[in-house]
Amino acid sequence: MNENILGIVAGVLTSISMIPQLIKVIREKNVEDISLVMLLILISGLSLWVWYGFKKEELPIILSNAFAVLVNISLLICYMLYRKS
Amino acid sequence: MNENILGIVAGVLTSISMIPQLIKVIREKNVEDISLVMLLILISGLSLWVWYGFKKEELPIILSNAFAVLVNISLLICYMLYRKS
Repeated sequence: MNENILGIVAGVLTSISMIPQLIKVIREKNVEDISLVMLLILISGLSLWVWYGFKKEELPIILSNAFAVLVNISLLICYMLYRKS
Repeated sequence: MNENILGIVAGVLTSISMIPQLIKVIREKNVEDISLVMLLILISGLSLWVWYGFKKEELPIILSNAFAVLVNISLLICYMLYRKS
């Protein structure tokens, strides 16, 4: 398979993977079993992948990780809204 | 920053990000708020990233995604064990 197509398919899958989680959280308004540390580390790591993508000039890496950062920041906002303190 | 170091740091962060989630699930034996669809899409996507890494011969991409596949498969096994059917 062509490298770029492979990268784009891989990128689309890992980018959209958190969307079902986000929908579930918005629908159920419950974040008890989700780890805040996971979200914080993930957002930091994904942001560095965006930077890596720019350095390597690889569009699949930039786009997929930038999108994943947005989804995970939305999940973080939901976490803050719905957690029981 | 050197590209490879950046890639390794990014890879380490995204790889270890699911570990706190895995620990939380193992400790609390509760997966109610975790999305199965998220796990399945994520594992597929991460596996394609490993393939992409091999094609591009980029070690940070191969190692970090292969490790993340392992962590997420563990999470999937926990999901199967602990879900209330």
